[in-house]
Amino acid sequence: GFARLDLQRAARTGDPEVVFGTGKTPEQIVAALRALHHAHPDNAVLATRLSDEAIAHCRTELPDADVDEVARVAILGEPGTPRGRVAVVGAGTADLPVIRECAATVRVFGSEPDVIVDVGVAGLHRLLAQRDRIDTANVVVAVAGMEAALPSVLGGLVGAPLIAVPTSIGYGWHMEGLTAWLATINSCAPGVVTVNVDNGFGAGVAAARIARATA
Amino acid sequence: GFARLDLQRAARTGDPEVVFGTGKTPEQIVAALRALHHAHPDNAVLATRLSDEAIAHCRTELPDADVDEVARVAILGEPGTPRGRVAVVGAGTADLPVIRECAATVRVFGSEPDVIVDVGVAGLHRLLAQRDRIDTANVVVAVAGMEAALPSVLGGLVGAPLIAVPTSIGYGWHMEGLTAWLATINSCAPGVVTVNVDNGFGAGVAAARIARATA
Amino acid sequence: GFARLDLQRAARTGDPEVVFGTGKTPEQIVAALRALHHAHPDNAVLATRLSDEAIAHCRTELPDADVDEVARVAILGEPGTPRGRVAVVGAGTADLPVIRECAATVRVFGSEPDVIVDVGVAGLHRLLAQRDRIDTANVVVAVAGMEAALPSVLGGLVGAPLIAVPTSIGYGWHMEGLTAWLATINSCAPGVVTVNVDNGFGAGVAAARIARATA
Amino acid sequence: GFARLDLQRAARTGDPEVVFGTGKTPEQIVAALRALHHAHPDNAVLATRLSDEAIAHCRTELPDADVDEVARVAILGEPGTPRGRVAVVGAGTADLPVIRECAATVRVFGSEPDVIVDVGVAGLHRLLAQRDRIDTANVVVAVAGMEAALPSVLGGLVGAPLIAVPTSIGYGWHMEGLTAWLATINSCAPGVVTVNVDNGFGAGVAAARIARATA
Amino acid sequence: GFARLDLQRAARTGDPEVVFGTGKTPEQIVAALRALHHAHPDNAVLATRLSDEAIAHCRTELPDADVDEVARVAILGEPGTPRGRVAVVGAGTADLPVIRECAATVRVFGSEPDVIVDVGVAGLHRLLAQRDRIDTANVVVAVAGMEAALPSVLGGLVGAPLIAVPTSIGYGWHMEGLTAWLATINSCAPGVVTVNVDNGFGAGVAAARIARATA
Amino acid sequence: GFARLDLQRAARTGDPEVVFGTGKTPEQIVAALRALHHAHPDNAVLATRLSDEAIAHCRTELPDADVDEVARVAILGEPGTPRGRVAVVGAGTADLPVIRECAATVRVFGSEPDVIVDVGVAGLHRLLAQRDRIDTANVVVAVAGMEAALPSVLGGLVGAPLIAVPTSIGYGWHMEGLTAWLATINSCAPGVVTVNVDNGFGAGVAAARIARATA
Amino acid sequence: GFARLDLQRAARTGDPEVVFGTGKTPEQIVAALRALHHAHPDNAVLATRLSDEAIAHCRTELPDADVDEVARVAILGEPGTPRGRVAVVGAGTADLPVIRECAATVRVFGSEPDVIVDVGVAGLHRLLAQRDRIDTANVVVAVAGMEAALPSVLGGLVGAPLIAVPTSIGYGWHMEGLTAWLATINSCAPGVVTVNVDNGFGAGVAAARIARATA
Amino acid sequence: GFARLDLQRAARTGDPEVVFGTGKTPEQIVAALRALHHAHPDNAVLATRLSDEAIAHCRTELPDADVDEVARVAILGEPGTPRGRVAVVGAGTADLPVIRECAATVRVFGSEPDVIVDVGVAGLHRLLAQRDRIDTANVVVAVAGMEAALPSVLGGLVGAPLIAVPTSIGYGWHMEGLTAWLATINSCAPGVVTVNVDNGFGAGVAAARIARATA
Ligand SMILES: Nc1ncnc2c1ncn2[C@@H]1O[C@H](COP(=O)(O)O)[C@@H](O)[C@H]1O
Ligand SMILES: Nc1ncnc2c1ncn2[C@@H]1O[C@H](COP(=O)(O)O)[C@@H](O)[C@H]1O
Ligand SMILES: Nc1ncnc2c1ncn2[C@@H]1O[C@H](COP(=O)(O)O)[C@@H](O)[C@H]1O
Ligand SMILES: Nc1ncnc2c1ncn2[C@@H]1O[C@H](COP(=O)(O)O)[C@@H](O)[C@H]1O
Ligand SMILES: [Mg+2]
Ligand SMILES: [Mg+2]
Ligand SMILES: [Mg+2]
Ligand SMILES: [Mg+2]
Ligand SMILES: [Mg+2]
Ligand SMILES: [Mg+2]
Ligand SMILES: [Mg+2]
Ligand SMILES: [Mg+2]
Repeated sequence: GFARLDLQRAARTGDPEVVFGTGKTPEQIVAALRALHHAHPDNAVLATRLSDEAIAHCRTELPDADVDEVARVAILGEPGTPRGRVAVVGAGTADLPVIRECAATVRVFGSEPDVIVDVGVAGLHRLLAQRDRIDTANVVVAVAGMEAALPSVLGGLVGAPLIAVPTSIGYGWHMEGLTAWLATINSCAPGVVTVNVDNGFGAGVAAARIARATA
Repeated sequence: GFARLDLQRAARTGDPEVVFGTGKTPEQIVAALRALHHAHPDNAVLATRLSDEAIAHCRTELPDADVDEVARVAILGEPGTPRGRVAVVGAGTADLPVIRECAATVRVFGSEPDVIVDVGVAGLHRLLAQRDRIDTANVVVAVAGMEAALPSVLGGLVGAPLIAVPTSIGYGWHMEGLTAWLATINSCAPGVVTVNVDNGFGAGVAAARIARATA
Repeated sequence: GFARLDLQRAARTGDPEVVFGTGKTPEQIVAALRALHHAHPDNAVLATRLSDEAIAHCRTELPDADVDEVARVAILGEPGTPRGRVAVVGAGTADLPVIRECAATVRVFGSEPDVIVDVGVAGLHRLLAQRDRIDTANVVVAVAGMEAALPSVLGGLVGAPLIAVPTSIGYGWHMEGLTAWLATINSCAPGVVTVNVDNGFGAGVAAARIARATA
Repeated sequence: GFARLDLQRAARTGDPEVVFGTGKTPEQIVAALRALHHAHPDNAVLATRLSDEAIAHCRTELPDADVDEVARVAILGEPGTPRGRVAVVGAGTADLPVIRECAATVRVFGSEPDVIVDVGVAGLHRLLAQRDRIDTANVVVAVAGMEAALPSVLGGLVGAPLIAVPTSIGYGWHMEGLTAWLATINSCAPGVVTVNVDNGFGAGVAAARIARATA
Repeated sequence: GFARLDLQRAARTGDPEVVFGTGKTPEQIVAALRALHHAHPDNAVLATRLSDEAIAHCRTELPDADVDEVARVAILGEPGTPRGRVAVVGAGTADLPVIRECAATVRVFGSEPDVIVDVGVAGLHRLLAQRDRIDTANVVVAVAGMEAALPSVLGGLVGAPLIAVPTSIGYGWHMEGLTAWLATINSCAPGVVTVNVDNGFGAGVAAARIARATA
Repeated sequence: GFARLDLQRAARTGDPEVVFGTGKTPEQIVAALRALHHAHPDNAVLATRLSDEAIAHCRTELPDADVDEVARVAILGEPGTPRGRVAVVGAGTADLPVIRECAATVRVFGSEPDVIVDVGVAGLHRLLAQRDRIDTANVVVAVAGMEAALPSVLGGLVGAPLIAVPTSIGYGWHMEGLTAWLATINSCAPGVVTVNVDNGFGAGVAAARIARATA
Repeated sequence: GFARLDLQRAARTGDPEVVFGTGKTPEQIVAALRALHHAHPDNAVLATRLSDEAIAHCRTELPDADVDEVARVAILGEPGTPRGRVAVVGAGTADLPVIRECAATVRVFGSEPDVIVDVGVAGLHRLLAQRDRIDTANVVVAVAGMEAALPSVLGGLVGAPLIAVPTSIGYGWHMEGLTAWLATINSCAPGVVTVNVDNGFGAGVAAARIARATA
Repeated sequence: GFARLDLQRAARTGDPEVVFGTGKTPEQIVAALRALHHAHPDNAVLATRLSDEAIAHCRTELPDADVDEVARVAILGEPGTPRGRVAVVGAGTADLPVIRECAATVRVFGSEPDVIVDVGVAGLHRLLAQRDRIDTANVVVAVAGMEAALPSVLGGLVGAPLIAVPTSIGYGWHMEGLTAWLATINSCAPGVVTVNVDNGFGAGVAAARIARATA
């Protein structure tokens, strides 16, 4: 075979392996989802970063799968009752694919996402109007591109664990998201942790694990 | 005054402001610690990144403070009973200052640090011998320089929230820790979150908040 | 001579040449200030980026000069009646040298600086409490290091011309201010213009020219 | 909806929000322009960075809009009587899209653009022949790629506020405009402010705000 | 002609020149393979980095050639009896093209490749299960993308010469393999040598030369 | 018009302006060549960096022009009798487009190019076999990609002025020619001067000016 | 204790752990050498990257140790009879510390170093005069800074395994050895492997392992 | 010995080897100068980049040497009658050390330097006032830091061979001269060649070789 699936991962870490779609054929992705679902019938299993072809192939071959074209993910099996709530807060409209990859991952990894979009700091009132939902979440994920000021502003407002996701949205020289990434790791607010540019998946895994342990 | 201390921060986020020592005079640091302690008599307050002069000045002026020369921190006031436990796992001997900055912060922010040092991946048996302490922690912090392989190996072993701290330890071209940092955000293990190079403080804040909510 | 002073600059641009202290001896700096003062008896003339030695030499040799140790500048001659007001808003305590270099330059170039310090976005209420002074200024200069979120938040609040000054204040990997700089040129607020890292002088020149034309 | 338009921005800053076309569908762009126009019937509203599809869709759906294929912008509504004049000076032929994005923005934000093209420093006489138009402008915008020497030469000639726009025009290793950008922030002329690479929009906003306050 | 083939190279170094396919036409590649084969009838000769067109052309024009579509190589002539064995160990599924380029090169340069795939460090048991094959090889090649932790883990387990091949596989900001590359040259395991990103060929040449001298 | 041709440049510098094809339409390129030819009937005029469309348009509209598809240039008018000889020495086959852009420029700017290809340092004998042609040239241009060792080896052999042209040919991480470029400006041979990556044109201008002044 | 020495490493890999001196106190270095020597009485053990203080302390505390001030290393115990020979070839005088760190490591790891210095490519005859010693070595290590052309020239001359060590020697912008490093991984000669900048130690370990297996 | 001087270089290239002082002891520098002077009694020989100690040692040990503290060079022996003239034109006062290293090299390599300082483009009249000396030189060297606009302006004015020397003079983020260097290789003026940052020596060698061949 082309791969050695890590079928013991759930036993070690509590969660099954995930299929990273980049660089895999649609056939390989469907086969991997099936094998993981077979090994973990009581969990939902996830494939991310799906191409148009992979999305189409999943729809045809896995009619029971839940496929999200914006998030570019497919989910096979039932996630079970969520524990805890994760506020996924996004700065701009263009950050939506990352926000939804994060939300889907939160669901698969056992928690409940609460999505709040387009509340960037250039219009603070939009953010402040959502404080109730944010203040009561177990974990906050802040998704932002350009200069990524949102995580710092949130970090001064809430005491819950806060994960920043820098995105590659920008104009001119932003170095494919490096600007946002540097901003998040240099936040003046204490305790902000971060993941790679556009990595809604990674933030979702971490957020769900914290939220379900907390709730 | 030279500064506007954010005395409402504990009300908003649950934790008092912290004094970042870089670029401040010993006198300013002592004054800020006193003001914060006065405003928050029931918390411990923290100053980080202290120069030799600042350490000496804190020892003279604040005899009740707990000053750590390796971690370069001073703590004023009592942290209270810790909730939860944070395994702070370090790859090499030279990572010790970062490890201890992290451990001190975990304590000030209300949890209990459990420090495990010199368990880098070139001698895997050293790490595997500590699995019990790691498996039972509420949060794992992985501190590593050079190629920073430790967080990925840990990420495949445990399901607890995992925070990587890349350090600036290396030889030749490592770009003052960028190598370790890039490694942590590109980890093949899912859900690893990260902070800036050598930022033991940031990891400590995040870890304590998660651990005390979890326990 | 070691230099060709540009004595016609005031005729062309309205302002005399300025002495950039870096890489010049104390004697060269004093000589240049004297020559510029002699050529422009009705203006104040400015030297920036002064070393400790240059500051001492200016104090001895130019008793009439106004020397600022924090801003590292010396001013010879009278600035005249200021036109317009420039709000110089700083995020953190450590940004003070840049803030004061800017304020001194604003004064020499003919406008009035209004300095507001330590109002970073991790404690928004500190900034909002100063809105009156900021809203009524002719120009706003926003000085910020780390992730430099302040200019974006200000850019969403005011319609006056807004100049961001990224500073080299940070921790871990911030690339000597590149992080702040990238943030300012990728601001999500429209119309933010920027200068080089720590260049309070450049922002001061631009701000004063706008403010005095506006008022 | 997919977005939260900031309809109060004009009240806070004097100018309506602008639609940033990158990453939006043609339908989203047209909907946003309509909503902004409806909320601000007395202003012109602007969409920038339009794809070919978005340009075609604006032409069909918004017959009253003013669409510029070179600048890649659409304008809906009437800009009103301009105040002040902005000289938009460009070094090379290939900088034209940036120059026109800037000029269109100046118009929408309430001032009058005066465009002067192909006056790069390798043939100084071309620039010197236009000094009258440049000397009498309220603000000067200098658009230049490659080594971006133009802002420095202009900065030695005029005393008006001067905004540099580095462009991504170059050959060989120019790092997609970083060369020009570094040049502008290291200008030997005092008081040059700058925006991101190719950001004619940002320069236009700043220039118009200054020009209309000045005139 | 368009080229000066180095036909004396085998006399100087023991191995014929190799055709680097990038930037050559299919016709040039076939002509170069024929000329090298003619000059070295007792060796196999190799062409690498073949485009789809070059692969098709080799299949048509050189029916005796061994063409590998995944490795993007063509081999003309017989490699002869292999000396020594090279373990080519790969971390992930997506590293396969690099792994196979390396294996083909090992064969052409006179040794025997032993390919072991998908044994990344997030599931250590997969790697440990292959220790026999790895421990008995004359040389180990470790192929890994993302954070490239595999070479360090292997370097702590074996004493054979170990060559790391960083790959450009990653997500978000990995800088087209720079992350993996920096990791390999900063390995905490002693004696790891490395080649350029994705350079399976270079590793194969070095590995074969060592293996055949050792065996 | 879209451009201000610098028709006085020949009077100031001895050579007419050149048309840089990047970012211009085929129509603009033909128009510019015609205008330059009309202003300089006794010189040859040159257009570089032509797209396929521009090459086709030049062939149709300017039947007298000399068009080179590999070099991507068009020449209109007669170069006149060459003065001096320029050895254009190339390391690899893939450097040919840069070599020919250089050779064409040398001819237009009044000297005679002597092209020597595929003499890279991995087979030194190929280079040493051409020493006569190289030793007797007035100027040597060394074109090389990858690690660009050729200019240093040549710099130890000849005393003529030596211009290095780094090219973007490479594999894996070479940063689009930065590797070669850094190599050329760090040459251990004294007096090597360099131009931008792939800038055969710039090297040709400099070489011709030196050669014709020398001969 | 401050460290967990990996005393089983010799059993796994054939060679004892080595003390990396950077960031350790003289006392820690001496203690580690003693512990390693005690555990491996039949091997030589090595400490590298010693500060002046560490060198002095080793001389006082470990009179039997072999301390090299140029290489900055200390050796305790007897290396045993060497197997195979490693040619350590250096381009310039300033590369000497790296050359000697490499040579000392080769000796400790069981082979015989043969050092050849100052044979850079700007004077090829110096290198060609040493071909006999180079051609008969089991492994060749090429140490070079600046543009690091030496490994490529050697790579075209010999068929033995070839390890390049880029050094941080250079002038102007060489990026602390990055130039040399990029050159070595982009070598036009096949099969060149490389280590980090100035890493004579790493090259020595790899070279000795190959040489002793080969001889 | 520590070095293999290349005593045949003058026979091959016409000029003796030069001593690069960086990383050499004062004793090594004096010994090398003596050996070169002995081998080339009819030339002047040069040592560059001398430390304070090396300058003092040269003054004591080589009383006949010509030592320049600003240029950091020592010259032994007589340069002979110069051929041709090189205009060395500098933008700012702080560029003087580079300017004088260049001028000294021009003299040693057989031509006559003509130094023109502090004529940066922010005051164009200063440059235009020196046009006679510049127009009649055989070669022009343009030395400039910050944004390095001077070479482009000169490149539009003269037809002589033009060598740019970027310097590391700047403020804020200029990346130790990278800004100036990128500017010079992206010059909009044709035929500008360049050397490494601050490499007055390299420019001097090239300029002298061209000037003496031309005159
Ligand atoms: N969108 C994603 N971003 C980052 N990592 C991912 C993503 N999706 C899956 N992964 C990781 O990739 C691993 C599977 O990689 P592979 O064995 O190549 O299929 C999973 O276990 C996850 O750790
Ligand atoms: N061409 C442009 N370049 C940079 N920023 C822009 C541009 N066009 C619009 N913007 C900014 O982007 C904001 C809208 O972003 P969004 O909510 O994503 O549509 C506007 O209010 C402007 O501040
Ligand atoms: N602190 C500063 N930061 C940036 N540029 C400055 C500063 N002070 C002076 N300058 C500029 O440097 C010029 C003088 O440079 P110089 O001729 O080298 O003394 C002035 O005209 C200003 O344009
Ligand atoms: N200031 C300088 N900048 C750059 N290269 C230099 C300089 N001075 C000498 N060199 C070069 O360094 C070589 C000598 O290097 P070394 O053998 O290390 O003394 C000379 O032959 C020159 O090519
Ligand atoms: Mg929006
Ligand atoms: Mg250790
Ligand atoms: Mg503060
Ligand atoms: Mg033009
Ligand atoms: Mg896998
Ligand atoms: Mg070839
Ligand atoms: Mg030498
Ligand atoms: Mg000056």
